[in-house]
Amino acid sequence: MNSNLGVAIIGYAFMGKAHSAAWRSVAASFEVPGYEQKLLVGRDAAAAQAAAERYGWQQSATDWRTVLERDDIQIVDICTPGWTHAEIAIAALAAGKHVLLEKPLANSLAEAEEMAAAARAAEARGIRSMLGFNYRRIPALVLAKELVATGRVGEIRQVRVAYLQDWLSDPSAEMSWRLRKETAGSGALGDIASHAVDLLQFVTNDEVRSASARMRTFVPSRPGPEGQEKVTVDDAIWATLELSSGAVASVEATRMATGRKNALQLEIYGEKGALRFDLERLNELEFLDATEPREEQGFRRILVTEASHPYLSAWWPPGHVIGWEHSFSHQIRDFLQSISNGTAPSPSFAEGLQVQRVLKAIESSDAAQGLRVDV
Amino acid sequence: MNSNLGVAIIGYAFMGKAHSAAWRSVAASFEVPGYEQKLLVGRDAAAAQAAAERYGWQQSATDWRTVLERDDIQIVDICTPGWTHAEIAIAALAAGKHVLLEKPLANSLAEAEEMAAAARAAEARGIRSMLGFNYRRIPALVLAKELVATGRVGEIRQVRVAYLQDWLSDPSAEMSWRLRKETAGSGALGDIASHAVDLLQFVTNDEVRSASARMRTFVPSRPGPEGQEKVTVDDAIWATLELSSGAVASVEATRMATGRKNALQLEIYGEKGALRFDLERLNELEFLDATEPREEQGFRRILVTEASHPYLSAWWPPGHVIGWEHSFSHQIRDFLQSISNGTAPSPSFAEGLQVQRVLKAIESSDAAQGLRVDV
Amino acid sequence: MNSNLGVAIIGYAFMGKAHSAAWRSVAASFEVPGYEQKLLVGRDAAAAQAAAERYGWQQSATDWRTVLERDDIQIVDICTPGWTHAEIAIAALAAGKHVLLEKPLANSLAEAEEMAAAARAAEARGIRSMLGFNYRRIPALVLAKELVATGRVGEIRQVRVAYLQDWLSDPSAEMSWRLRKETAGSGALGDIASHAVDLLQFVTNDEVRSASARMRTFVPSRPGPEGQEKVTVDDAIWATLELSSGAVASVEATRMATGRKNALQLEIYGEKGALRFDLERLNELEFLDATEPREEQGFRRILVTEASHPYLSAWWPPGHVIGWEHSFSHQIRDFLQSISNGTAPSPSFAEGLQVQRVLKAIESSDAAQGLRVDV
Amino acid sequence: MNSNLGVAIIGYAFMGKAHSAAWRSVAASFEVPGYEQKLLVGRDAAAAQAAAERYGWQQSATDWRTVLERDDIQIVDICTPGWTHAEIAIAALAAGKHVLLEKPLANSLAEAEEMAAAARAAEARGIRSMLGFNYRRIPALVLAKELVATGRVGEIRQVRVAYLQDWLSDPSAEMSWRLRKETAGSGALGDIASHAVDLLQFVTNDEVRSASARMRTFVPSRPGPEGQEKVTVDDAIWATLELSSGAVASVEATRMATGRKNALQLEIYGEKGALRFDLERLNELEFLDATEPREEQGFRRILVTEASHPYLSAWWPPGHVIGWEHSFSHQIRDFLQSISNGTAPSPSFAEGLQVQRVLKAIESSDAAQGLRVDV
Repeated sequence: MNSNLGVAIIGYAFMGKAHSAAWRSVAASFEVPGYEQKLLVGRDAAAAQAAAERYGWQQSATDWRTVLERDDIQIVDICTPGWTHAEIAIAALAAGKHVLLEKPLANSLAEAEEMAAAARAAEARGIRSMLGFNYRRIPALVLAKELVATGRVGEIRQVRVAYLQDWLSDPSAEMSWRLRKETAGSGALGDIASHAVDLLQFVTNDEVRSASARMRTFVPSRPGPEGQEKVTVDDAIWATLELSSGAVASVEATRMATGRKNALQLEIYGEKGALRFDLERLNELEFLDATEPREEQGFRRILVTEASHPYLSAWWPPGHVIGWEHSFSHQIRDFLQSISNGTAPSPSFAEGLQVQRVLKAIESSDAAQGLRVDV
Repeated sequence: MNSNLGVAIIGYAFMGKAHSAAWRSVAASFEVPGYEQKLLVGRDAAAAQAAAERYGWQQSATDWRTVLERDDIQIVDICTPGWTHAEIAIAALAAGKHVLLEKPLANSLAEAEEMAAAARAAEARGIRSMLGFNYRRIPALVLAKELVATGRVGEIRQVRVAYLQDWLSDPSAEMSWRLRKETAGSGALGDIASHAVDLLQFVTNDEVRSASARMRTFVPSRPGPEGQEKVTVDDAIWATLELSSGAVASVEATRMATGRKNALQLEIYGEKGALRFDLERLNELEFLDATEPREEQGFRRILVTEASHPYLSAWWPPGHVIGWEHSFSHQIRDFLQSISNGTAPSPSFAEGLQVQRVLKAIESSDAAQGLRVDV
Repeated sequence: MNSNLGVAIIGYAFMGKAHSAAWRSVAASFEVPGYEQKLLVGRDAAAAQAAAERYGWQQSATDWRTVLERDDIQIVDICTPGWTHAEIAIAALAAGKHVLLEKPLANSLAEAEEMAAAARAAEARGIRSMLGFNYRRIPALVLAKELVATGRVGEIRQVRVAYLQDWLSDPSAEMSWRLRKETAGSGALGDIASHAVDLLQFVTNDEVRSASARMRTFVPSRPGPEGQEKVTVDDAIWATLELSSGAVASVEATRMATGRKNALQLEIYGEKGALRFDLERLNELEFLDATEPREEQGFRRILVTEASHPYLSAWWPPGHVIGWEHSFSHQIRDFLQSISNGTAPSPSFAEGLQVQRVLKAIESSDAAQGLRVDV
Repeated sequence: MNSNLGVAIIGYAFMGKAHSAAWRSVAASFEVPGYEQKLLVGRDAAAAQAAAERYGWQQSATDWRTVLERDDIQIVDICTPGWTHAEIAIAALAAGKHVLLEKPLANSLAEAEEMAAAARAAEARGIRSMLGFNYRRIPALVLAKELVATGRVGEIRQVRVAYLQDWLSDPSAEMSWRLRKETAGSGALGDIASHAVDLLQFVTNDEVRSASARMRTFVPSRPGPEGQEKVTVDDAIWATLELSSGAVASVEATRMATGRKNALQLEIYGEKGALRFDLERLNELEFLDATEPREEQGFRRILVTEASHPYLSAWWPPGHVIGWEHSFSHQIRDFLQSISNGTAPSPSFAEGLQVQRVLKAIESSDAAQGLRVDV
C-alpha cells in the first residue's frame, strides 16, 4: 500500500527490542494507519543486521544519518542512550521525519530546551514528535487518571510516588555508562525519578512548582575493566514537591532497594477517595471511594482487564493479564493515530522539558542542602 | 531460507488470535528453527483474509483440507472448537503434518482415544503432535514443578486447585455453543477443570487414580435468539481426587464465581513446604520452606521475572512482567524445538487422553451421586 | 451489688485461659449485667489454684459437682474436652445453672441429642444455654452475615470454606487425646470442620441438606510415650454440601496444610456480589459489589475497625486492630445480655446438634466412598 | 501480699482505657512482680469513679497530687495530655514513684530536657521511668529489630517510614485541643511522626543526625463551638533524615491519607535483605533474604504468632492473632520486670528527649524552607 508509513528504528538494545516488539504487534490488535518496519540502525553492522532479522526490520544500516536521506522513511523511533538524543532528534525533525523518542529527552537542560524548540517548529510544519514516557499507556494508570479527572478522589492533598529497583544493591555490580555523569547525566534521577515525576503530573493533571530534595550515592565506586571506578551519579533521590493545585507529593527513587525489582508505586490521597498502583502488578489498580458508607469502605483491587478499560478491548477476555511490553504497543498506537489524525501527540518534547526542569530543581535543591527551589 | 517450516493455522477467533501473536513474537525472543506463517484457514473467506492480514499470515483459505495438500506446510496449528478436533487432527497427522492442537483434545472419550492412537502412529514416523495446555508454559508454574521435583516441598499430601471465573454469573448472559452438550461436550468441566487437572498432574508429576465428584448447573436456561434455551452443560464442578502417590487433591471449577475473572489457583502442601499460584498474578509464585527456622517461615512471593527463571532470559529485566499471551509463545518455542531436535513434545495426545479420562470419572461419579469412580 | 451473677469455669487449659481473659475484660468494654468470677474448677488442686489466681477467679475447686450445689453460682462456663460435655452440661442445666459450653457440643450424636433435649427443657424454665462457636462473634464475619442478609451479594450460588492448619504436618508431632477416636470423637472433622460448617450456615443463614465427602489420615501412627501409636481419627476432610437454598458449598478442613497456621477461609459467591474472609487477618473482610460499573469493580478490603462495625464501638479508634481472643469477649457479652434480657442465646444446643448431624453425614458419606448422604 | 506494688493511673480517656486493659491482663499471661490497681485519677469525680469501676481500679480521686502522698503507691502511670506531662512526671519522680509516661515526653524541648534530667536524677536513687512508645513492644517489630541486629539484612542503606491516618481528611471534622499549638505542641509531627522516628531508630539501632523537612496544614480552619477556628498545627510532615551509620530514611506522617486508618508502614533496605511492616496487619512481618538463590528470593510474610517469637509464648497457639492493645501489655510487663530486676527500662526519658530533638530539627528545617538542620 503506497500510503504506508516507513519506519526506522535507531538502537537495538533493551529499548530497541521492546519498541520492536510493539511495532510487530500493534497492527494486529489496533486500528492504525499502515506502516512498514523498514530499517534498523546500529553501529555494529553484523549485530545490527542480526537484530533487524530477529526483530522484523527489512534492512539494517550503521549510520543513523542514512535515515534522513531516505524518502521512504517517515517515522524515526530513537532508542539510543540519552546523550545522543539531541543531535539525532533535531536532525530527524529538520529532515521532516516524525520522531518517537525514548526518554529521557536529554541529559542536560540546555539540550532539552533546544529540542523542545525544534519540536515546536516541526509541529508547525505538521511534523509530529512524542517522548516515550511509556507508563502513561498502562491501562491501570490511564484509569487512575480518569478517576481523578471525573472527581472520584476529589481534591488531591497528598501523592506518594516511589520507584524502587535493586539492580545496584550489590556493591560488586559493575561500572557502566549509566553510572557516569558525562554519559548518563544523572543516576536514579534521570533514569527512574523522571518516570515518577511524569506520572505524578500525568495522573493528577497538575504541575510541580517547587522541590526540596536530597540525593545520595551509597556505593561510591564500582569495579570496571581497569579496577574500581568512581561512580559519578546518584543511587537514590528523595524529594518533596509542591504542585500548582496546592497538593504535596513525595518522590523517592532508588536502584538500591533490595528485593524491589521494578516497583513504581503511586498513591494518591484526595478528599473523596484514594488510589494505589504498583508496576510489579501493572494489571491492577486499587481504589477507595470515601463517599460510600463508612462501614463498607475499603481499597478495592480492580483487575484492569475489562473490555471497557483503556486499551483493553484490543486484547484478551477479562482476567487474562497483559505484560509490561504493551505499554509500548499502546504508545505506538497513539503515536500513529496522532500522525493519522493530524493532532499533536502527548507527551510532547515540551512536556519532557518541563519534567527535566523538575529534575533540575531537585538537583539544585540537593546542592543547596535541601532548600526549596522553584521549578 | 529453504529449511523453513511452513505453518498453517486453522481458526482465527480467541485462540487463533492468541496463537498468531505467539507465532509473530517467538522468533524475536527465542532460538527456534526457521518458520513462515504461510496460511490462515477460516470458513468465512472475507473474514479469514482480514484475519490473515491482521495477524501476519501470508495467505488465507476457507477449507482446512487445503492444508493437507500443500507441500510447503509442515505444521498445522488447530484453533477450532473441540467438536472439530478429531477429524482435522487425524487427517493432518495422516498427511504427515506436525500438529499443535488447542485443548480440549476432543469432546468425547471415544474420539480422544482415536486421536491418541493416531498421534502414536504418527510419532513412529517422526510426525510430532502436542496438545495446547498452555499453562504448562507459565514460568511460575514451571518453577513450581521444579521446586516439587527437587524436593523443596517434600512428600505432597494435599493439593487444592480452583479455577474460578464469572462470565456466566449473570443469568442474562446469552446462550452459546459453549453451553450445549452436543457442541461443547461439557461446561466448566472440559473448559477449565481440564486445565486444573492437567496442571495438578504436571506440577506434582503424579496421576489421578479416582474421583468423587459433583456437578451443577445453576442457571438452567439462558436467552437465545428464539427465547430461553436449555443449558445442557455444567456451570460448576467439585471433585476430590486420589493420586497415585497417596496425595489427595480437591478441584473446584466454576464460571459463576462473581468477581473472579481468571483465577486458576493452585496450592500444594507437602511435608517440607508449600506453594501457591494464582493465574491473575501469573508472574508470581508463593513458596514456603518449612525447613527454615520456625520463626522465619512464611509464604514468600517470588516475582518470577529473573533471567534464571524458566523462559525469562528471553524477555525483559527483572520486575518487567510478562502477559498471559506468552504462555503461547513458550508453547510454540517448545513445540518448534521438539520438531527440530526430533523429540516427542509434551503434553502428548496420550497425556490429553489421560486428562479426559479423569474428566470422565468426574462425570461418572456425579452421575453416581458422588460415589468414588476409578480413572 | 447483690444482683451479681456468680460465674464458675470448669477447665483451665487453652480454652479456659481464653474464656478467662474474656471474663476479665468484657465489663470494661461493654454494658453487661454485673457478674463475679467466683470459682475455677480443675482436677489438679494446686494447678487449679494457681490458674484461679492467675486468671482472676476468687476460688478454686477440684470437683465440678461442687458448682451444682452452690447457690451463689448462676453461670457455668464449661471448657473441658468434648467427652465430658454431656455429663457436666446436663447436670448443670438440671441444677438450674445457665451454661456456656465450648464446642464441640459432644463427641457423639446420641449425646448431642440428649444435650439438646436438656437445653430445651431448661429453656422452658428460663435457664439459658449457649454453644461456644466463637467465630460467630468476629466482627468481620458478623458484617459478612449482614451484607448477605441485606442482599448485597444477591442469591448465593457457591460457598468455599477451608480451614487450614499445619500443627500435625510434621509426622513426628506427638500422639495425644486429640488423635484418638475414643477421646476426640474425630480429628479435623469435629475440631475445625465443625467451625467451618457452623460459619457457613451462620453467614448464609442457610442449612446443609446433604453431603458427599471424603476423609483421610495421612500419618497413620505417631510417637507416644510407649512407642508409635495408631492415629484413629482423620487428618483432613473434603465435603461438597448442598444447602436448602440450592447453593453448593465445598468444605476442606485439615491439620496438615504446611504453612497455614489458622486459616479459616470463607468465600461466598452470589449473583450480585462476593465476600472473602481469612481468620489469619480477622480484622478484614473483602467485598465485591457486582452492581457497580464493571470497570470499577474489585474486591475491596474493608478494615473492620470502625465504630459502626459490629462490636467495635466498644474498642479502639479505626485501624487499631483487635485480637482473636475478643471473639470470646463478644460471646460472653451476648450470653450475659441474653440472660439479662430473658432471650434465648444463639447458637443453641439445638443448633450445635444440627452441625453435629452434618458432621455425621460427612462421616457416613466417606464410609460409603463419597456417596451423597442426606443430613 | 505485702510485697505488692501499688499502681495509680492518671487519666482515663483513650490511653487510660488502653493502659487499664493492659494492667488487667498482664499478670495472667506473664511472670511479673505482684501489683495492685489502687487508684485512678481524673478531674471529674463522677466520671473518674465510673472509670475506676469499669477499668478495675480500687479507688478514684480528682487531684493527681494525692498520688504523691500515698505510701501504698509505688508506680504512677501518666495518661494525660502532653502539656501536663512535665509537671506531673517531675513531681512523681521527686516523690519517689516509678513513672510510666505516655508519649510524647513533652510539648516543648525545654520541658523535655528538664524531665530527662529529673529522670536521670531519680534513676540514681533507683526510681525507674519509662516512656510509652508502645510500638516497640509489637512482636513483629521486635523480630524486625532482631533480624537487623543479627545481620540478616546487612548494612542498611534506606529506610522508608510512613504513618498514614485519615481522621482529619474530612474538612468538617471538628476543632479540638489536638489541633491547637498551645495544647498539642504540634500536629502529625508530635502525634504520629514521633512514633515513626522512634521506631526507625529502635529497629535500626541507629540515630538520626540531620533532617531536611517540610510541613503542611491542608485544612486551615475547622468548625468549633463558636464557628470556624484556626488550625495552628500541621496536618502532614515529610522528612529526609540522615542517620549516624550513613543510611538515609524518609519519613512521611499525615492524618489526611483518605482510607488509611492506622498505617504505620516501615520498610528497611539493606545490602543483604529487606523488611516490611504495616501496623494495620501487626501480626505480620515481611522479610526478604537476598543471600538466597536469586530465583527463590521473595518477600515472605511471617505470621508472627509462634511461641518462639517475641512475647508470643504467653499468648495463643500459632495463627491466633493478637490485637493492638497488647503492645501495652508487653510494655507493662517490661516495665514491671525492670523495676523488679533493678534495671533501667527503655525507652528512657533521655531517649524520648532525643526523639524530641529530631522533631525539633524537622520543624526548624521546615521553617528554613527545607534546608538541612542538624539534630
